[in-house]
Amino acid sequence: MGGPEIERLIAELARLPGFGPRAARRAALRLLRQPQARLMPLIAALRDAADAVRPCARCGNLDSVDPCTLCADPRRDQGLVCVVEGVGDLWALERAGVHHGLYHVLGGTLSALSGVGPEDLNAAPLLARVAAGEVREVILALPATVDGATTAHWLTDRLRPHGIAISRVAHGMPMGGALDALDDGTLAAALRARQAV
Amino acid sequence: MGGPEIERLIAELARLPGFGPRAARRAALRLLRQPQARLMPLIAALRDAADAVRPCARCGNLDSVDPCTLCADPRRDQGLVCVVEGVGDLWALERAGVHHGLYHVLGGTLSALSGVGPEDLNAAPLLARVAAGEVREVILALPATVDGATTAHWLTDRLRPHGIAISRVAHGMPMGGALDALDDGTLAAALRARQAV
Repeated sequence: MGGPEIERLIAELARLPGFGPRAARRAALRLLRQPQARLMPLIAALRDAADAVRPCARCGNLDSVDPCTLCADPRRDQGLVCVVEGVGDLWALERAGVHHGLYHVLGGTLSALSGVGPEDLNAAPLLARVAAGEVREVILALPATVDGATTAHWLTDRLRPHGIAISRVAHGMPMGGALDALDDGTLAAALRARQAV
Repeated sequence: MGGPEIERLIAELARLPGFGPRAARRAALRLLRQPQARLMPLIAALRDAADAVRPCARCGNLDSVDPCTLCADPRRDQGLVCVVEGVGDLWALERAGVHHGLYHVLGGTLSALSGVGPEDLNAAPLLARVAAGEVREVILALPATVDGATTAHWLTDRLRPHGIAISRVAHGMPMGGALDALDDGTLAAALRARQAV
C-alpha cells in the first residue's frame, strides 16, 4: 500500500510479544504520522537504549550498568530483597518510593497452562545470594493470581532451608478503593487479614 | 531506576500522540525486553521508514514515493476518488480490495469540540483535482459519527458546484464504528451500496 519501508516496519513491529498484525499496523501509523524531526530523537533514544541496556546479572533489573544502579547503591538495605515478577513491577515500587532494599526480578511466574517451569525463571541468582548469606529477609511481591501464589509457594520451599525471614506483601483493599467495587477474592483477603485498631 | 537511556526512551515515547507516561513505560519495557539482535532490525526499519515515507502531495497517503504508489498506478480508476479520514482507513479498504479508484486522505474530521476547522483538513488538493476536471465521482467514506457526518456535509457543499457525482458509503457499517475496525465483507457491502447525495 505504501512501499516496502512501511511493510518492513509493520513486519518488525508484529514480531514484538503481544503485537499482532493489527496492533503493528496501528503502531506503524502512529509512528509515521509524526514529522521526521520528531521521530529521529525517538529512533536515537531507542538505539542508545538497545545498545546500553542489559539485565543486571545479580537482580534481573534492566539498566545500562551491571550490577544495576539499585544493586550498586550503598544506601540501600543490601539484606532486604523484594522479589517481583517483572521490571515493570520494580519500576512501580520505585515510583512509590516504598522499598529501600534491593530487588530480584524473576522474569515470570510458574504456569502449568503456559508451560512455564522453574527452569524458565531467573531464580538461581537469588538463591545464590541467599546461600552466600547476603540476605536477611525476602519479601515476595508476586501477582495475586494462582500462578503468583504457586510461584511464591515454590520459592518459599527453596528459601526456607536457609533460615532467613520470608514475607509476602499484604492482600487487601486498595487505598482509595470503594468496597463495592472489589471482587470477592479481595474482600475475603481483606477480611481474613484484618488488623486490630 | 535504570539509567538515563531508559528515561530518555520513555520520554520520547511519551511524546507520541495518545501515549501518556504509563503507556510509554509499558512500550519501553516491551521493547527493552527484546534481545538486542531482535531490536536492531526494528530500529533499522523505523529509521528507513522515517527517512523515506512522506505524505503523497496529491492524496495524503503515506508512501516512500510521491505521488504515491496508488496515485501512480495506471490500472486504477483515476476519475473515482474515495475520501477517508486517515491512512489507516485507506489501508483497511486496500486490504479488503474493494476500491479500485484513487483515495483522498483528509487527515481528520471537522470537530467543534476538538477545535478542528476546515483549515485543519487536507481538503484543498482534493478540491483542486476536482476543479481540474480529473474526478468523475467522489465517494465519501468518513466515520459514521457526528463529526464524520458534519465533515461529509461540509465537503459535499464544496464539491456540489463542480457537477460531479457524490456518494457516500452505505450505512451498513455500524454507527459509531471506526472504518478500520470493519471486516472485509461489511466494507465491500458499504461500498457497493453507496448512494447519491
